[in-house]
Amino acid sequence: MLETLKQEVLEANLQLPEHGLVTFTWGNVSGIDRESGLVVIKPSGVAYSEMKIDDLVVVDLEGNMVEGALRPSSDTPTHLALYKAFPEIGGVVHTHSPWATSWAQAGRPIPALGTTHADYYYGEIPVTRGLTQKEIEEAYELETGNVIIETFRNLDLDPKAMPGVLVSGHAPFNWGKNADEAVHNAVVLEEVAKMALHTIQLNQNVGSMDQFLLDKHYLRKHGPGAYYGQK
Amino acid sequence: MLETLKQEVLEANLQLPEHGLVTFTWGNVSGIDRESGLVVIKPSGVAYSEMKIDDLVVVDLEGNMVEGALRPSSDTPTHLALYKAFPEIGGVVHTHSPWATSWAQAGRPIPALGTTHADYYYGEIPVTRGLTQKEIEEAYELETGNVIIETFRNLDLDPKAMPGVLVSGHAPFNWGKNADEAVHNAVVLEEVAKMALHTIQLNQNVGSMDQFLLDKHYLRKHGPGAYYGQK
Amino acid sequence: MLETLKQEVLEANLQLPEHGLVTFTWGNVSGIDRESGLVVIKPSGVAYSEMKIDDLVVVDLEGNMVEGALRPSSDTPTHLALYKAFPEIGGVVHTHSPWATSWAQAGRPIPALGTTHADYYYGEIPVTRGLTQKEIEEAYELETGNVIIETFRNLDLDPKAMPGVLVSGHAPFNWGKNADEAVHNAVVLEEVAKMALHTIQLNQNVGSMDQFLLDKHYLRKHGPGAYYGQK
Amino acid sequence: MLETLKQEVLEANLQLPEHGLVTFTWGNVSGIDRESGLVVIKPSGVAYSEMKIDDLVVVDLEGNMVEGALRPSSDTPTHLALYKAFPEIGGVVHTHSPWATSWAQAGRPIPALGTTHADYYYGEIPVTRGLTQKEIEEAYELETGNVIIETFRNLDLDPKAMPGVLVSGHAPFNWGKNADEAVHNAVVLEEVAKMALHTIQLNQNVGSMDQFLLDKHYLRKHGPGAYYGQK
Repeated sequence: MLETLKQEVLEANLQLPEHGLVTFTWGNVSGIDRESGLVVIKPSGVAYSEMKIDDLVVVDLEGNMVEGALRPSSDTPTHLALYKAFPEIGGVVHTHSPWATSWAQAGRPIPALGTTHADYYYGEIPVTRGLTQKEIEEAYELETGNVIIETFRNLDLDPKAMPGVLVSGHAPFNWGKNADEAVHNAVVLEEVAKMALHTIQLNQNVGSMDQFLLDKHYLRKHGPGAYYGQK
Repeated sequence: MLETLKQEVLEANLQLPEHGLVTFTWGNVSGIDRESGLVVIKPSGVAYSEMKIDDLVVVDLEGNMVEGALRPSSDTPTHLALYKAFPEIGGVVHTHSPWATSWAQAGRPIPALGTTHADYYYGEIPVTRGLTQKEIEEAYELETGNVIIETFRNLDLDPKAMPGVLVSGHAPFNWGKNADEAVHNAVVLEEVAKMALHTIQLNQNVGSMDQFLLDKHYLRKHGPGAYYGQK
Repeated sequence: MLETLKQEVLEANLQLPEHGLVTFTWGNVSGIDRESGLVVIKPSGVAYSEMKIDDLVVVDLEGNMVEGALRPSSDTPTHLALYKAFPEIGGVVHTHSPWATSWAQAGRPIPALGTTHADYYYGEIPVTRGLTQKEIEEAYELETGNVIIETFRNLDLDPKAMPGVLVSGHAPFNWGKNADEAVHNAVVLEEVAKMALHTIQLNQNVGSMDQFLLDKHYLRKHGPGAYYGQK
Repeated sequence: MLETLKQEVLEANLQLPEHGLVTFTWGNVSGIDRESGLVVIKPSGVAYSEMKIDDLVVVDLEGNMVEGALRPSSDTPTHLALYKAFPEIGGVVHTHSPWATSWAQAGRPIPALGTTHADYYYGEIPVTRGLTQKEIEEAYELETGNVIIETFRNLDLDPKAMPGVLVSGHAPFNWGKNADEAVHNAVVLEEVAKMALHTIQLNQNVGSMDQFLLDKHYLRKHGPGAYYGQK
C-alpha cells in the first residue's frame, strides 16, 4: 500500500546524505497521503546506506502503526502534529544540518538578507521559544510540534510561505507540498543559514533586505504571477 | 545553428556544479555570437544533471526568442543589458555562490588584499547600490543589468579589467571573453571572497594591497607584457 | 589471534579518513579484548590507504609487544592508561580533527549548546590542564593519559556518559564500548565542535542548554529508558 | 634524463589538486637533482588534469632551459633562489591554498598553537615583509625568493626546522627534502592555518604553546631522537 508515496519518501530520505545535511542517522523525512490520512516515515536509527523501501513505516495521524516491521522515527509525533496543524503540507523533514543548527542553538531567527533567502522564505525564518521542563518530560516530541505551531500562530505566519523553522536549542524542521519539496527547502535553509552568518560577520549592522525586493523574489517563484522555471 | 556556441555554453553551465558554485538550478551562463547578435542561454529552472544541448535557448539582444522549446533563464534581461553595454564581453554568468553572495548581502565591495585577487581583478570588486522599489517592480532583471552598468560608469571601471560585480542584497555576476572565461572568473571570485573574509577576521585593519603589486600581478597575466602560461 | 578484534580495529581506523577526521596518518584507533587484556592498535605512521590487518600491532596493558612486525602508534601509552583507568571502555581513538583540535588549542571546554551534543555527551566536554615540563619530558604519552584521567576524577565525570576529552594544546581523544563506537563519538565531537564555534559567533552570551533538555536527549538514546533506534 | 626526478615532481604536482590545495593552475612544484644542479619544474599555466611527464621543464640554477618544450612556471626564479640559499632542500612548492593565503594576506605569522603545528614546524611560521616597488618592478619572482631568504636570516631560522613561509600579500611557499615532502608540508600548513584562525576566534588571548611541548612534538618526529613512524 502507498507504494508511490513510499518511493517518494525513500528517495527524499536518501537525498539528505547526498546534500550533506546529515551525519549518521540524524535526520528523517516523512510524507502524507491526505486521502487516507496515513503517513510514511523513516524508521528510527537506520543507516541511509542500508535503508530499503520496506523499512519505511506507515502510521496514522494518531501515531498508530499501520504497516512496517521497524519502529518509526522517534520524532514521529512532531511530524504528525505538523500535518494536523498545517493541512497544506505533504512532507516534513528534520535534520541537524550544521549551519541551521548553529542558528537554532544560538536562539536567533535568520533574517532575510538577500534574494537567495527570498526565493524560498517569505521573511525572517523564526526560532521557537525553548520548551519548558514540563513539556519536555511529558511529551517531548509532540510538544516540539506544538511549539512550532504556537510560533507560527503568534507570528501569524503562513506555513506555505515560510516552509521551515528553527527549534531553539535543537535544530531545524522543514516542510513542503511533498517529501521532495520539504528536503529541497531544507537544503535551501542550510545554504541561507551559512551565508547569513558570513554576511553578519562582514556587516554587523546589516538590516533585513528591502520588503519590495523580498516580494519580487518570492513572488517570482511562487503564486499566480510566478515566472521562474518552465510552466 | 550556433552549434559551437551552444556546446561552449552547455559546458560552461555544467562547470558550475563541478566547481561547487551552485545549489540546485541557481545559476545560469550565456554566450553571445557578436556577428549575428544572438545569445545562447540556459533555460529557466532546468537541473544541470538533465540539461542537454537542445534545451539551450537562443534569443536576440532584444530578448526575442529565436530558437528553443523552453523558456530562457529569468535573468536573461540582465545578461542582454550587459552584452549591449560591454561590447568586449562574450560570456556572462550569474550564480549565488555562497562566499561572494555573503559579500553582496553585506553590501561591501571586496578589497584587493592579495595576488590571487590581482591576478584576475584589477582593483576592488564593486558592489552596486540597491535597486529602488520602482526599478524592481517595473523591470527587475533589466534594471539589475542597468545598475551594474551604472556602477561601472560611476567608478570608471573597465569591464575587461574588472570581470565581475556584486549586486547588493543579491549575488554576483561575472563575464569574460566567452562563456568559459566568465565561469573561470566566477570561480576566482568565490575563492577571493572566501579568503578576503578570513583575511579581515585575522586583521581588521588590513588595507588594500600596494598598487605596484596589484599592477605587477594583473599585468603578468593580462595585456601585451603578460608572461604567465604558454604563448 | 584476536582476528575479530583486529578486523574491527582495522575498519574503525579506515573510517577516520572516510569521515574526514584525519590528514595523512594523524590518528589512531585501538580496541581491547578485556578477557585476555590484549590491545590491538594501529601501527605508527602507516598510511590508511595501505594498512592491512596484519599491520596491526597487539600489545598487553603494560605495553609489551605480543604480536606484529611494526611499531605500535606512538600514542599507545595514552590508550593503555585509558583502558586501565576506565574499565567500561572497549575502544579508544585519537585524531587531530580540525574543529575539535581548535577548541583544544584554545584551551576551552565545549559547552552543551544543543540536542546534537546532548544525544552523545552528557554535559560540557572537558579540556585538560596543560602538561608540565616534567611530565612531557619524562613520559609524555603516558602523562597525556594520566591528565585525562585526572580531569575526569576532578570533575567527577563518568567516561560512559562523557566519551571524549580535549587535551589542552593538543587534540581530542574519544572512546566507546568498542572501536567502532569510539570513532562514532569522534565524528560527533567534530560536528559538535564546529557547530559550537558558529553558535558562539552568532550569540556571544549563549549559555548552556537547559539541564532538562540535556537529560531528555541523552536519556532518549542511552540507558534503560532509551527509545531511539531499533531494539 | 632525470626520469626518476621528473616522475616524483609530476606526482607531487598532481597531489596538489588531490589535497584541495589548488584552484585551476595556481600552484607549482619543483625538485632538484643536487649532483647535476638541475631543477625539474611544472610548466606555466598547464592544467593538472592534462599534465604529462614530458610537459615538465628542466632548468639549471641560473634559469637556463635545459630540456622541455614548454615555458617553466613563472615562479621559477623564486624556486631557484631558494635552492641556492637553502642547500639542504630538495623540493619546493608554491600554492595559493586558501587558509594559508588568508594569513599571508593579513600579514600575520602563524603562531604555534598546538601539537599539529609542532609536529612539522618548529615555532611560529614567519611572514615576510612586503616587497618594495623597485623589487617588484625589476625582478619580482627573484625578489620574492630573496625576501624569503632575508626573513630566514633575520629571524635566524633553519629551513629544515621551518619548512615554509608566508609571503606578505601573496601566498605560501613550502619546501622539503624532496618534492613529495614539500607538498606534505604544504598540506600541513593549510591545516594548521585553518585551525589557528579558529583557535584565535575561540580565544583571542591564546598565547603560543609551551616551548617544552613544542620541543617534545617536533623532536618526536625529527632528528636523532625521533620515535614516530617505522624505522
